[in-house]
Amino acid sequence: MTVKRRTGRRPGASDTRGEILAAARQVFAEKGFDKASVRGIAREAAVDPALVHHYFETKEGLFVAAMRLPIDPVEVMGRLLEGPREEIGERLVRLILTVTADEEARTPVLALMRSAMTNEQAVHMMREFITNALLYRVADGLGIAHLRIEAAFAQLIGVVLARYVLKLEPLASADLEELVELLGPTVQRYLAP
Amino acid sequence: MTVKRRTGRRPGASDTRGEILAAARQVFAEKGFDKASVRGIAREAAVDPALVHHYFETKEGLFVAAMRLPIDPVEVMGRLLEGPREEIGERLVRLILTVTADEEARTPVLALMRSAMTNEQAVHMMREFITNALLYRVADGLGIAHLRIEAAFAQLIGVVLARYVLKLEPLASADLEELVELLGPTVQRYLAP
Repeated sequence: MTVKRRTGRRPGASDTRGEILAAARQVFAEKGFDKASVRGIAREAAVDPALVHHYFETKEGLFVAAMRLPIDPVEVMGRLLEGPREEIGERLVRLILTVTADEEARTPVLALMRSAMTNEQAVHMMREFITNALLYRVADGLGIAHLRIEAAFAQLIGVVLARYVLKLEPLASADLEELVELLGPTVQRYLAP
Repeated sequence: MTVKRRTGRRPGASDTRGEILAAARQVFAEKGFDKASVRGIAREAAVDPALVHHYFETKEGLFVAAMRLPIDPVEVMGRLLEGPREEIGERLVRLILTVTADEEARTPVLALMRSAMTNEQAVHMMREFITNALLYRVADGLGIAHLRIEAAFAQLIGVVLARYVLKLEPLASADLEELVELLGPTVQRYLAP
């Protein structure tokens, strides 16, 4: 996804963008990811749907921006599929650990995880995005069963939780390369059986 | 751990037991697992430390009972070490998935996970218990690096989260045996390298 924030912007356009994001957060929370539509979000923000597409391209791009997520599914997919298939596990582990190592990128991810643990509405919204927009696409792109990508997701979300929320030592201070070596073969086995 | 709830109990002793558990929850929350002592908890509950040992045997047993955890570390350790080493991964996956399949057993585990996500004091208390009382003991018993048991822990906590909190399909409805087959080799590789 390319967010066209810096091109062709009229004065005051940044407020419009912010209003679209606020409307998106409200509509995604109310309807979940699947039932929310760009048209409905545009209506809520009182803008033309074309403007939403101009800023965010797709509903997925809008969700990613609204939740301030550091990774875009299309980007993940691209990075996973480029390069040799026999290193896909290592590549995914390295990507997730590199992104979450940055506190600014990690904060909204942990905030979403906290909401998901305590709020049924947040779970519903995330579940649809995680499966339909993210995991199933990667699995289908790789030609593997959906259960296998969810096993990999579980490994990686567990590591992020243990490293950055529970802060279990030695995992919390472990070197990136050591973790890639330990976790890479697990993810490789799930994604390239 | 054997909780001697049903033997040699005087009338009114069940209240004493409840008071010890309430005192334990307070002291563990205030001091964390490591710094809390059976003596300090007994003082808080205004009972003799011998009575705490009578009911709960060890500080670990007291923590497990106070947090209403469905698994006791000593029991886990025993179950993991009995039987062939080459099936240890399968055995651990089966144990965790069987215990968490029971809603009554799962509820306090999810409650602790929720607290850990949102409450720094709860994280501190859990971190010490998880590492010192649980994971390091299993790792030392198996003669493996602490990082390896934490990778297995991350895989399993991620699966419980994805299956019972996020309820991602097809993982949430997957058959126990299918999950044992998928996840067993991962845990096996971590625990018996």
